[in-house]
Amino acid sequence: MSLFKRSVTELFGTFWLVLGGCGSAVLAASSPLGIGVLGVALAFGLTVLTMAFAIGHISGCHLNPAVSVGLCVGGGFPARELPAYIIAQVVGAIIAAGLIYYIASGKEGYDLSTGLASNGYGEHSPGKYSMAAGFVCELVMTAMFVLIILGATDKRAPAGLAPIAIGLALTLIHLISIPVTNTSVNPARSTGPALLVGGWAIAQLWMFWVAPLLGAVVGGVTYRWLGEEDS
Amino acid sequence: MSLFKRSVTELFGTFWLVLGGCGSAVLAASSPLGIGVLGVALAFGLTVLTMAFAIGHISGCHLNPAVSVGLCVGGGFPARELPAYIIAQVVGAIIAAGLIYYIASGKEGYDLSTGLASNGYGEHSPGKYSMAAGFVCELVMTAMFVLIILGATDKRAPAGLAPIAIGLALTLIHLISIPVTNTSVNPARSTGPALLVGGWAIAQLWMFWVAPLLGAVVGGVTYRWLGEEDS
Amino acid sequence: MSLFKRSVTELFGTFWLVLGGCGSAVLAASSPLGIGVLGVALAFGLTVLTMAFAIGHISGCHLNPAVSVGLCVGGGFPARELPAYIIAQVVGAIIAAGLIYYIASGKEGYDLSTGLASNGYGEHSPGKYSMAAGFVCELVMTAMFVLIILGATDKRAPAGLAPIAIGLALTLIHLISIPVTNTSVNPARSTGPALLVGGWAIAQLWMFWVAPLLGAVVGGVTYRWLGEEDS
Amino acid sequence: MSLFKRSVTELFGTFWLVLGGCGSAVLAASSPLGIGVLGVALAFGLTVLTMAFAIGHISGCHLNPAVSVGLCVGGGFPARELPAYIIAQVVGAIIAAGLIYYIASGKEGYDLSTGLASNGYGEHSPGKYSMAAGFVCELVMTAMFVLIILGATDKRAPAGLAPIAIGLALTLIHLISIPVTNTSVNPARSTGPALLVGGWAIAQLWMFWVAPLLGAVVGGVTYRWLGEEDS
Repeated sequence: MSLFKRSVTELFGTFWLVLGGCGSAVLAASSPLGIGVLGVALAFGLTVLTMAFAIGHISGCHLNPAVSVGLCVGGGFPARELPAYIIAQVVGAIIAAGLIYYIASGKEGYDLSTGLASNGYGEHSPGKYSMAAGFVCELVMTAMFVLIILGATDKRAPAGLAPIAIGLALTLIHLISIPVTNTSVNPARSTGPALLVGGWAIAQLWMFWVAPLLGAVVGGVTYRWLGEEDS
Repeated sequence: MSLFKRSVTELFGTFWLVLGGCGSAVLAASSPLGIGVLGVALAFGLTVLTMAFAIGHISGCHLNPAVSVGLCVGGGFPARELPAYIIAQVVGAIIAAGLIYYIASGKEGYDLSTGLASNGYGEHSPGKYSMAAGFVCELVMTAMFVLIILGATDKRAPAGLAPIAIGLALTLIHLISIPVTNTSVNPARSTGPALLVGGWAIAQLWMFWVAPLLGAVVGGVTYRWLGEEDS
Repeated sequence: MSLFKRSVTELFGTFWLVLGGCGSAVLAASSPLGIGVLGVALAFGLTVLTMAFAIGHISGCHLNPAVSVGLCVGGGFPARELPAYIIAQVVGAIIAAGLIYYIASGKEGYDLSTGLASNGYGEHSPGKYSMAAGFVCELVMTAMFVLIILGATDKRAPAGLAPIAIGLALTLIHLISIPVTNTSVNPARSTGPALLVGGWAIAQLWMFWVAPLLGAVVGGVTYRWLGEEDS
Repeated sequence: MSLFKRSVTELFGTFWLVLGGCGSAVLAASSPLGIGVLGVALAFGLTVLTMAFAIGHISGCHLNPAVSVGLCVGGGFPARELPAYIIAQVVGAIIAAGLIYYIASGKEGYDLSTGLASNGYGEHSPGKYSMAAGFVCELVMTAMFVLIILGATDKRAPAGLAPIAIGLALTLIHLISIPVTNTSVNPARSTGPALLVGGWAIAQLWMFWVAPLLGAVVGGVTYRWLGEEDS
């Protein structure tokens, strides 16, 4: 498949990740009988689970610059394709954030300053966790996410089931860390809402690029060592 | 298998979709320790997951006129079988709505005007979302649903796991959009309760045929392009 | 494997079904931050999902007299083995109810009259649903459960995944019907707690044998017709 | 793979189990719109599900001294490797507890005396269950957990799906027993938080070694008998 078509597929997939994950948070988390943090965590995971089954055979279904980098370090993804994938992921995330904003605005009194599920630290952390706590949390979560992705797609792992492992890993990560940073582990997912919200969300966006990308490298290197047969 | 037997199978399957999805919403969503929107979203998805394993090999388990149309556009489902499938799906949905009404009436004080989990927009949207927001939401959700169905049943996707991908995609869609329209993405599911509730539910029913069917065409065309090998 | 060993395996499996399903209801449903009806529904389903993977290859993992009867009508389970299976299932359920009672009593002030998750109708239905509503609900739910079991274990269905379909079908059934009858669809599951609670629970126990067994026959006959190739 | 590399893999896996399970409990269980006991139960299960897919082919993914002992009794795990596995598991759990403490402390006013998700009985049981109830509960839960692990990894069970069965078994166990002991069934998971909390948590730690290890032996012996072909 051409890099162009695979990149467009990544755009659709990341659109779905942000629409499903951030969309459920904005529209359904605190509505009457709402789904809460548990439902949002499930939604994020299911975006990846469903897309990995649907488009895994087309683009590999990264949906996340940190995952693309992690697969570059720890798997076989070619570095020369990183720019196209990452640009497509960010564009998909921005379109999704726009659509969430359009739908949310269909309810009278919607206020963008509620944050459109942006990620944040300090006073913009849902639970007011410090920048340091948020940074470490994002780094470790992304490292473990990449480790699980590399392990579950290892040719020695059960065939065909990686979408379940990877999707539910993202659910798990949200179950742990939504109160800390609203959970990113994905720079594209953070960028979409931040561009619409502006202000603090853009000012804090650096962390949701730096920590996940660092974590991805750590996870990639770690799995490479663990999974390598002893010589 | 004969078209007749496959259509009867679709009737049973759509009966289960509406009984499980709308039934859990009517009977269990707001009962003491109730399951809420998260539980209803799970219930809708599990109707499809369970039936896709149980009857996928008989009828293909569409359970939804929009899915049948999407598979016609993007997959190999023959257009001449659409009428039989769609009629069976609608009949199954109506029977299920009747059964939910019967069971719900077994509790003193049950009031049909609570809506039997009908879909709606404007003042009949659970969160009072506008018609335009509802229309766009239904269209996009159905498009992505059909895209996932076509991708997960693609012969290049992991064999046998499509029921999990498709069922959980429906759960995800409900996690996002129940507050907006009570989530249809399925004209048969909307028609069953609307016929019993009457009034506004019938007056708004057009949207839950038009938007999902349009979305299904969009999803079918999109996957066809994404999934096609470059020449 | 000998009928004796398979029956003992059914005893262990049904013990787990009741311990997990009724146990979570008694111990965790309404505790602080409790799991509610959604968690209990998940627990019931997971008992079957986990056991079907663990002992399916030993005894077939029925864990339920209605399932054994349904498989007798619609599948290949031999009628002469029904008594041993059903007795083992009931004994396992009784032991589990006893253990739940022992653990629950380890908390000061535990009161058996809260019902030990017994099934009931009328004033003993969680939502005060009538006997007729409860009967119809149990019959239809069991019929669909048996239909799903037969379909998911059909040799044309995806191999190895039936435990997921069947377990999550039981979760779905609980999501719909806990408010109506506390959900049985399983005479053994109803008998265990009823014997300890006595009184009304025993007086109403007939319904949770009659309706599920009737439903199982309906489900078995229905799938047999749907699944049969046209001649 | 060398025992050293497999042990380091167990360290990472158990780190993930405690970080995900205890971390979600500490950070997210009772936060606004929090995940509650249901979410924590899901998180514990998903740590094992994800890791079993990711590292099962490296170390077997025990993540739990009781599981290692159970596999020694009922499966083929060599007793001489027990010490390395168990030490690695405990070390991973301690590091995870430290990291949770670090992140949790990033919120002003965090108080370690809330327990860091330690296990306990009597006045330190979440629901004030007695020591005897807790002991029996831990023993039975671990026995059934080991039985499910041995059954789901039996060569007669569906290939590749054991991670789902085993992970969701752990979720189920938490759905039942969090109110009783905060659920251990895993001495390493208990040891990590206890070392940081000190005092009562260390004084009660014996039970979360003795009961799970006893249960593991019971489960191992039971499955060995059930699963063995009659001669």
